[in-house]
Amino acid sequence: MLSKGGCPKTMLSIRDALETLEGKWKLLILFSLSEGPKRFKQISRDVPGITDKTLSKELKRLETHQLILREVFNTFPPTVQYSITAHGMSLEKLLDELHYWGLLHRKEIIGK
Amino acid sequence: MLSKGGCPKTMLSIRDALETLEGKWKLLILFSLSEGPKRFKQISRDVPGITDKTLSKELKRLETHQLILREVFNTFPPTVQYSITAHGMSLEKLLDELHYWGLLHRKEIIGK
Repeated sequence: MLSKGGCPKTMLSIRDALETLEGKWKLLILFSLSEGPKRFKQISRDVPGITDKTLSKELKRLETHQLILREVFNTFPPTVQYSITAHGMSLEKLLDELHYWGLLHRKEIIGK
Repeated sequence: MLSKGGCPKTMLSIRDALETLEGKWKLLILFSLSEGPKRFKQISRDVPGITDKTLSKELKRLETHQLILREVFNTFPPTVQYSITAHGMSLEKLLDELHYWGLLHRKEIIGK
């Protein structure tokens, strides 16, 4: 595909994806939720270094992009649960590629 | 692969990749250079919205990560050329996935 390097239409769709997934947290949150529905604290534990403020902001954005679902259960007190949507799961191949490239890059740069 | 959701080692390699490729410009610059070696102004034209200051900063970072090569030719005045490295080209599949997902997301969200 890179042979179509520089093609404006392709540049636009790559930019669309990057702007939606922008930042280092969204894909890590989705990766955590790909294991199954979770509560706020569980996601926070899965994603090292994320603050509650940032997690809450990123969850809202992911919900806006229809990548996750937020559900409130009528317990006392009410419980809130987050789950990945089918559209969110469509990122599986991209997460795969990031995982493999992350390993490759670490080997290339640090040599282990 | 998402079935291994939440696995810490996979989370780490995804985070490595995201931190290296962080921001919305690096992958667009690499996509532009995948067409062939280019000069500063040519890359700037390919990547809509990027300022010269940002492009210069991102090119330095990409060079540090061994994803591009900067060459100075002994012309008068000297000419500077940027090209993607083999390691940079290893991002081809990731760029493919971003491209396809960008199209899918646009259709899902905007319906066209």
